[in-house]
Amino acid sequence: MRIAELACASGVSATSIKWYVSEGLLPAGERTGYNQTEYTEDHLTRLHLVRSLIEVGGLSVAAVKDVLAAADDPGHPFGNTLGIAQASLPRPATPPSDESLRQVQEAADALGWQVHDANPGLPAAAAVLDRYRALGRDDLAATLPNYLRAAELVAEADLDAVTKILDQGPAVAAQTVVVGTVLGDALFAGLRRMAQENESVRRFAPTPGSPT
Amino acid sequence: MRIAELACASGVSATSIKWYVSEGLLPAGERTGYNQTEYTEDHLTRLHLVRSLIEVGGLSVAAVKDVLAAADDPGHPFGNTLGIAQASLPRPATPPSDESLRQVQEAADALGWQVHDANPGLPAAAAVLDRYRALGRDDLAATLPNYLRAAELVAEADLDAVTKILDQGPAVAAQTVVVGTVLGDALFAGLRRMAQENESVRRFAPTPGSPT
Repeated sequence: MRIAELACASGVSATSIKWYVSEGLLPAGERTGYNQTEYTEDHLTRLHLVRSLIEVGGLSVAAVKDVLAAADDPGHPFGNTLGIAQASLPRPATPPSDESLRQVQEAADALGWQVHDANPGLPAAAAVLDRYRALGRDDLAATLPNYLRAAELVAEADLDAVTKILDQGPAVAAQTVVVGTVLGDALFAGLRRMAQENESVRRFAPTPGSPT
Repeated sequence: MRIAELACASGVSATSIKWYVSEGLLPAGERTGYNQTEYTEDHLTRLHLVRSLIEVGGLSVAAVKDVLAAADDPGHPFGNTLGIAQASLPRPATPPSDESLRQVQEAADALGWQVHDANPGLPAAAAVLDRYRALGRDDLAATLPNYLRAAELVAEADLDAVTKILDQGPAVAAQTVVVGTVLGDALFAGLRRMAQENESVRRFAPTPGSPT
């Protein structure tokens, strides 16, 4: 298809498409004549992926580039792809305190988790505990044990999804990790809002005649 | 304290502080003389709150304004504060498909959740399922049941935190809802990265001698 058709099918402007090509996020189309380039269904799928990571995942173009470079490299060890998808998490602006790092680590240890010191989730979680403390709301850290058990459930589902497609080759597995990790945060944030309302209704305003 | 001291204690520049005051995010200081304004500890706490919502929660200044206006209004019904904190979730750029909305709704119904159609989490979650579908990865929706159960656990902890401080008045309860909802997403995203590594190690590369 021509670039105008690709733009129409994807909802991404021709200018943005050209920019993604120049940034290496999208392979160049095939030149078929003067000022004429052909794009394929693979370009369309790739564009959907790039836009999903940017719009839903909130990633920067630079972060998308890193993540996709790892996912595209067939020689990339699978464990590293997971690590790179995980690094999509924004780094906290200031390093978290040792106190909060220890607090998260100890909560994870209590569940027998094996997590490397370099896991980007550790400083990200610790930075939130620092904010709670700065706001005089250390009490909010009491949510930690439940959050950890919930994270276990989510990670089980995440790894199930990867395990199921391992026979489709490393490229599909890598795409699963990237899409599932980045978009999964947005999915969970949405479901959490729904669960909060449900829990609030259950506690504070039961519907008359409801079983609870 | 003077504005320079407030800037130093909070790590927020005097220019930003003045801007937050002009935007109504921070109450004005007390004028004590020509070109001299005094700020208090309350200003510092408030600044921490504003910065946390922006930096960790990723909210826009406009979103922070809405959320804090609701939290500050003592007459605001508690249920509404929850709704407004929930609306901090960015609206999907395009409306989600009926198919995905139904898919999320049915998964919630299966757990007996009572959730209003207007809950902002519903379109947010459905929009992610649309992205999975556009990428040809409908299979990733298989994570939904586990994600829902995990969201229940998180919501229980969230509402526990609110219930514990209800006797401290509506302002503290509202702050809990706002901080807990917005920063809780970031906390969970961090813990999820750790849980993914743990689950990956458990399945694919058990440490020699480990009990699992």
